[in-house]
Amino acid sequence: MSATCAVSRKAQSPLPPRPPGERDPPAKAMRRGLRRGHEEEREQLPWPGESAGGGGGEPEVEQAASLSDERRRRQPQEPRALAAAAAAAGRVEEEAEEERLEREHFRRIINAFRYYGTNMHERVNRTERQFKSLPANQQSLLPQFLPHLDKIRKCIDHNQEILQTIVNDCVHMFENKEYGEDCGISIKKIALRLKRLAEMETEVLIWYLQARDFSKVNILVPGAGLGRLAWEIAMLGYACQGNEWSLFMLFSSNFVLNRCSEINSCKLYPWIHQFSNNRRSADQIRPIYFPDVDPHSLPSGSNFSMTAGDFQEIYSECNTWDCIATCFFIDTAHNVIDYIDTIWKILKPGGIWINVGPLLYHFENLGNELSIELSYEDIKNVILQYGFHIEVEKESVLSTYTVNELSMMKYYYECVLFVVRKPE
Amino acid sequence: MSATCAVSRKAQSPLPPRPPGERDPPAKAMRRGLRRGHEEEREQLPWPGESAGGGGGEPEVEQAASLSDERRRRQPQEPRALAAAAAAAGRVEEEAEEERLEREHFRRIINAFRYYGTNMHERVNRTERQFKSLPANQQSLLPQFLPHLDKIRKCIDHNQEILQTIVNDCVHMFENKEYGEDCGISIKKIALRLKRLAEMETEVLIWYLQARDFSKVNILVPGAGLGRLAWEIAMLGYACQGNEWSLFMLFSSNFVLNRCSEINSCKLYPWIHQFSNNRRSADQIRPIYFPDVDPHSLPSGSNFSMTAGDFQEIYSECNTWDCIATCFFIDTAHNVIDYIDTIWKILKPGGIWINVGPLLYHFENLGNELSIELSYEDIKNVILQYGFHIEVEKESVLSTYTVNELSMMKYYYECVLFVVRKPE
Repeated sequence: MSATCAVSRKAQSPLPPRPPGERDPPAKAMRRGLRRGHEEEREQLPWPGESAGGGGGEPEVEQAASLSDERRRRQPQEPRALAAAAAAAGRVEEEAEEERLEREHFRRIINAFRYYGTNMHERVNRTERQFKSLPANQQSLLPQFLPHLDKIRKCIDHNQEILQTIVNDCVHMFENKEYGEDCGISIKKIALRLKRLAEMETEVLIWYLQARDFSKVNILVPGAGLGRLAWEIAMLGYACQGNEWSLFMLFSSNFVLNRCSEINSCKLYPWIHQFSNNRRSADQIRPIYFPDVDPHSLPSGSNFSMTAGDFQEIYSECNTWDCIATCFFIDTAHNVIDYIDTIWKILKPGGIWINVGPLLYHFENLGNELSIELSYEDIKNVILQYGFHIEVEKESVLSTYTVNELSMMKYYYECVLFVVRKPE
Repeated sequence: MSATCAVSRKAQSPLPPRPPGERDPPAKAMRRGLRRGHEEEREQLPWPGESAGGGGGEPEVEQAASLSDERRRRQPQEPRALAAAAAAAGRVEEEAEEERLEREHFRRIINAFRYYGTNMHERVNRTERQFKSLPANQQSLLPQFLPHLDKIRKCIDHNQEILQTIVNDCVHMFENKEYGEDCGISIKKIALRLKRLAEMETEVLIWYLQARDFSKVNILVPGAGLGRLAWEIAMLGYACQGNEWSLFMLFSSNFVLNRCSEINSCKLYPWIHQFSNNRRSADQIRPIYFPDVDPHSLPSGSNFSMTAGDFQEIYSECNTWDCIATCFFIDTAHNVIDYIDTIWKILKPGGIWINVGPLLYHFENLGNELSIELSYEDIKNVILQYGFHIEVEKESVLSTYTVNELSMMKYYYECVLFVVRKPE
């Protein structure tokens, strides 16, 4: 039970060791994330722990590294000639700016976790004030209303305890002892994270993998979220690496993968933020328990790892992966053709790309952000022109996503599922 | 085919004539709408035309009236004594302010209709600019992309023609010849209206009414939207009055009820605003045809009318209605107890209230707006304490709402349906 899942800041193929030259500076990815200003900001994060499974031999992924460690590793690559001094100075300045932005963004995410409770209590206090502004005869019709708000407050406090546990780990990784008190992060981001914890991630891909015998193949899962799909694939016996960009996800997956072991030992109240569409008041304050599997139960010799950072910048080594599995991922792109391009390049000849998900383009309504919204028909045309061969195609795979089963409003996706192969 | 549906600015029970004293000044309701600042602003609107059916005898509702006509009708009610002069002056000032706000809001809605095309073309132009910023080799992968945008532009122009026809009617009703050029209204409001036109309104209530023989009963439908449910109820032979608050809805229902007669004679492109979750590009530019029934096909002697304004302010006469049918309505309340209170008062003893819908409280996330969000359990408790008897109760009636059948993302409601009776 002592094995922990390690998350590297650098891309690594789980099977062959990779040359250092293939590794993009992760800070660049982080800066890009900040510039984008997207709710699901994807960034890099050093991670504690060691490889799960770790059946002897070389560790699959790196140990935890602070931001400054990472920066030191990049120093030797700088030019030493006098002629390059000015350029080097510019780069140092750029790196200082990168560091500032990294720390600022990291602090914002940490604060979002820390001030979840404060923000949520404010929301409940407003509801209490508004209820108390009603005529006395109306208030008397609902004697259970204020006691219900008190129950919600207890749930908030419990959620805050879990969130504090999550960030306690992460804070020390960066050696930042103090963070600012202001928090402009919406509680909705946290709420979304809590909802994600409330259910297993979509595992539609599994059926295809289970049907095949990929001994000694390596599989990459970009947009791995809390790591559940990558973990499930590793459980099947494949070498699997998940990649994730969002600090919210990375903090939470660190907690689930490294701090939770006993099944259903942790509790959260993911629905207390939903004041609409409740049939019963008790529905709003019901808990969920997690993890529903023991993350440490990977068999000895399993090869499972996670990387933190921007998929397109981290994974640039050609002909590396036997399989890439994308689940609710390709619509996170500014330009989905770039994703297709990367996938085409890093797949080995004969390798396959399995995709399932809708096309809810994340940047569609974000002002001046680049957002190329293609229909599935367009995407398929691009895939075919790249040279992929379609092996499986289903256009209506039903799936929910962080759904509250008891809510009076639900949404669902009719996902596209395809398996395409890069020719030998 | 010449009969038109008349919409009054005043509440009227379709069966008995009502005393003038029961009529609230509609401007008050409009001002409240403005103060609320809610997307679905509910207001009053004079309407052209005459009663549908109109089987001889007295017209059920008033003829079209300009704002100044309406104001003139209220003048005689003002006190004439000198002692009351100051108070009267204050009221005049208040009414002048009301008029200003009324006109301003009306202009905003008209502009939203008028500048729909401009805003949508801007959206498509942005998509074109972004596509053209891609590398040439990526653009060449999608030769059909720019021609598709041109098709969308043609659809926008067609939609704009319909919207212009809709507002042309409404503009003359207020004798306002010119409106400002600025338009801060989101195109999404218009898009939602177009989607509403794309499908019949939920008619889950009908099954209950069809099972009963309510000869000579009057039925009120608050939140009537485009009037479809109220029209269907009138088709069953009941005297039915719809009430609506939103100018968007009122403008559009005026068009559908009074200007459309031949089935499927009008066309709209309601999905061109959806750039995500399209399986095929053609899905985005497919038209819908309306009306799917002839609004003028109500049998002779039918009693169908619409009122414009705030439900709670217009309907204050006690013991008036045999039945109130609310469909996707009660969650539009700032305080749903107020709605229940009004319904209790205006129902005749022995009258019934039929409700179907979710509890997606419209004001939940609107800053400092009063928003009392009750679970269905709470609502039921209040209903029972008022003295209603529950006759029918179903907790999971599945329903969609303005759904794009071909989209890869859909949401649906598990509605509560109940029929409750006010005791004799």
